[in-house]
Amino acid sequence: MATYCVRRYLSLLKGRASLGWQKRKFADSARSDEAPDPTAVVTDLCRGRHFITGEQVEKDSLLAGWHGYGPLGMVLRRNLAEQWWRSMTTSRGQVFGLSTLHQAGSGGRKALKLVDGEALAAILKEKGQSVEQLTAEVERLLRASATLRTELLQGALEQYTHCLSLVNRKLPFGLAEMGVCYQPAAPDSEGTTRGGDVGLAGVVQLPPHRWTVAGLLGAAQAAVVEEGASNFSSSDFQDECGTKGTRLYYSFPWGREPIETLQSLGDRDLLETHQGNRAKLQCRDGRKTVIPHVLSVSGNMDRGLLAYLFDSLQQLKKVDSKQRLHQRKVLKLHPSLAPVKVALDMGRGPTLELRQVCEGLLQELLEEDIAVWPGYLETMQTSLEQLHSKYDEMGVLFTILLSDSTLENGLIQLRNRDTSIKEVMHISHIKNFLIKYILAAENV
Amino acid sequence: MATYCVRRYLSLLKGRASLGWQKRKFADSARSDEAPDPTAVVTDLCRGRHFITGEQVEKDSLLAGWHGYGPLGMVLRRNLAEQWWRSMTTSRGQVFGLSTLHQAGSGGRKALKLVDGEALAAILKEKGQSVEQLTAEVERLLRASATLRTELLQGALEQYTHCLSLVNRKLPFGLAEMGVCYQPAAPDSEGTTRGGDVGLAGVVQLPPHRWTVAGLLGAAQAAVVEEGASNFSSSDFQDECGTKGTRLYYSFPWGREPIETLQSLGDRDLLETHQGNRAKLQCRDGRKTVIPHVLSVSGNMDRGLLAYLFDSLQQLKKVDSKQRLHQRKVLKLHPSLAPVKVALDMGRGPTLELRQVCEGLLQELLEEDIAVWPGYLETMQTSLEQLHSKYDEMGVLFTILLSDSTLENGLIQLRNRDTSIKEVMHISHIKNFLIKYILAAENV
Repeated sequence: MATYCVRRYLSLLKGRASLGWQKRKFADSARSDEAPDPTAVVTDLCRGRHFITGEQVEKDSLLAGWHGYGPLGMVLRRNLAEQWWRSMTTSRGQVFGLSTLHQAGSGGRKALKLVDGEALAAILKEKGQSVEQLTAEVERLLRASATLRTELLQGALEQYTHCLSLVNRKLPFGLAEMGVCYQPAAPDSEGTTRGGDVGLAGVVQLPPHRWTVAGLLGAAQAAVVEEGASNFSSSDFQDECGTKGTRLYYSFPWGREPIETLQSLGDRDLLETHQGNRAKLQCRDGRKTVIPHVLSVSGNMDRGLLAYLFDSLQQLKKVDSKQRLHQRKVLKLHPSLAPVKVALDMGRGPTLELRQVCEGLLQELLEEDIAVWPGYLETMQTSLEQLHSKYDEMGVLFTILLSDSTLENGLIQLRNRDTSIKEVMHISHIKNFLIKYILAAENV
Repeated sequence: MATYCVRRYLSLLKGRASLGWQKRKFADSARSDEAPDPTAVVTDLCRGRHFITGEQVEKDSLLAGWHGYGPLGMVLRRNLAEQWWRSMTTSRGQVFGLSTLHQAGSGGRKALKLVDGEALAAILKEKGQSVEQLTAEVERLLRASATLRTELLQGALEQYTHCLSLVNRKLPFGLAEMGVCYQPAAPDSEGTTRGGDVGLAGVVQLPPHRWTVAGLLGAAQAAVVEEGASNFSSSDFQDECGTKGTRLYYSFPWGREPIETLQSLGDRDLLETHQGNRAKLQCRDGRKTVIPHVLSVSGNMDRGLLAYLFDSLQQLKKVDSKQRLHQRKVLKLHPSLAPVKVALDMGRGPTLELRQVCEGLLQELLEEDIAVWPGYLETMQTSLEQLHSKYDEMGVLFTILLSDSTLENGLIQLRNRDTSIKEVMHISHIKNFLIKYILAAENV
């Protein structure tokens, strides 16, 4: 809130009230000769196009994960999670999925407690008690309250021995989990201490020593990062306990933030979790008997998604037919991640008949699990230009336009988001064209 | 724990110590003339076969959701969630997915607070403060602590106005969310107040009045319930506020428990959430302008999964070749829900060559997203009978056995979980056979 107010105040001072954040949402910022705040450009678009939701969306709230997801963001997040999961569980050896409790047994010092607010209020209301009595009662409640996990590693380490029977103690194998973790965050502007609900995706690889950290990192990066994306970077680190690792970063407009961490933990954490019981932990690596070394990958899914959104937005200058300069914003989401693959719209022609053809095509595409935006249901008149810029901001790969000629000869117009080239295609070829296009993009 | 101890004590009294829970895990309970506890039969199998995890798994902990999921359970839960989501979002009109914050703005009286344990401990340690000072400090911390949501409805109602622009205020449309909710639970045997982390799946339908509750319930039931499953039942209710609804139940061995609730909420909750601002809420239903009536469906995903596991276990008596009576346990999971579709094993023959063929088939099936269990990696010798009963308990649909004849003529043996019939098939036909089998089951 603070950031926005300051910025609005400045713009008013400069006599440019239209840049205020309320109106900027869909304002054509290209007309201004001053470059708008790059963070606001992305967040305004993401809020306006139903990717993220939240009363105030700014750097700190985004980093803390204090935002929800609208319909498009929710599907994008699902698609990203699915790709991550697939790359983790199917690309190499046996990796088993887990789902452990959100409530950690012990939890670190910095963890959040799940306290029954009503019970605590009742203790405080108790009349005539001494400070000692009150302290003892609150402490008792605190002890009885569960602690929320701050990371996924511990749960996976605990399940390790159970999972040994699945592989008959044979290495290598991995454990992966995606889930919510709660990390205490700094109080926000209203003074509320909120735990960021952070969707962490972790994989614990329990390999014999031949798997290298570098190799795993390559795979981890490929899952989150588009090839050639230069805003992603990585660097090695070594913490105070001597643990070595590599961190993957994204350079947001305000600076570099970590997205994913890979650590080589040795056998220490595993032994600690299982009270040093070596016999219980032993595995077979070929003919040798070993205590596995743990490689842990943990990523912040929400921040990964954010980085991906920031990375996908491209702003292109464009001159229209009346020689006016426009800023074209395109969310260049990867074909397999884009929440909507194709929008279906009607041009000129008999409404009833065209709508029937749209319905048929919609069903055909949905049966192939191709996400379609039923733009033809829209009864408000909008220009084709407005429609395209809306779909570009939504990251829709293709726009199909049906018109009276479709009813005559079966031809439709297909517009490509990335090239903005329109081509004519027979309606019977669309399904296969889209399937091939998405598949080809996945295999790159 | 308590339940187990009592039961064990009773069995010792009767001189039947072998029925103790430690040994019962994989014991052949058919030999006993007394029927084992039906709950323990299911939970022992589910723990042994990596569906659910947890130190103590019994009625109360299961209902509260105090269990994790092992590799098989995690995939089963994913598959179930996917089916539910698909049935909700693709089967009728436009239903948009959402993901709102876990931290509710206000939260009901019965909600759990996210308290920074360290900060609370620091307040308690403060020396020389009065009762009033201590109370005020704890109250301040409590006010500043976020409240965790207990249900998904509120978040969806809040997002309602944002989503209106997606459909240009045209009814009907729906909002769906799946996510974690925290409900205060009774303290467990150790006195710990844990909030059950309940995965709730909710959909809020905002239809014009023509959609009937009965119709929606049918769809809701179909998502969780297998056809003809007689342990599922439903009944209508009306609460103290006059809200009408229908509840879907499952009859567990210990009694009937609710799985899913459908409520017809009228426009009350929507108006309350948006401070009675009717203009903001208005939608078009054909040519009429209306405030939509809310139909809410909310289900407990963990309990639904539990019901499904209880419902899937079938116990069949079987006499083996030596005239010994066996109890065959089969987890008859639906083909589209079963976490493992097919197990790949090697019989007699040259190990190296057979393994290569297995690897090839594994890759071929994985490429089609068919979940395969690589049983051929197992180097411990087990009889075919043990192998089949293991896979039956895992709910694996088919077992493929490769042997030296496969190398000669390409023929493999395919065993069906449900019929236990073995048939011979050429290896090149397996992929298409499996795809067709799973697809056919989905369309039933």
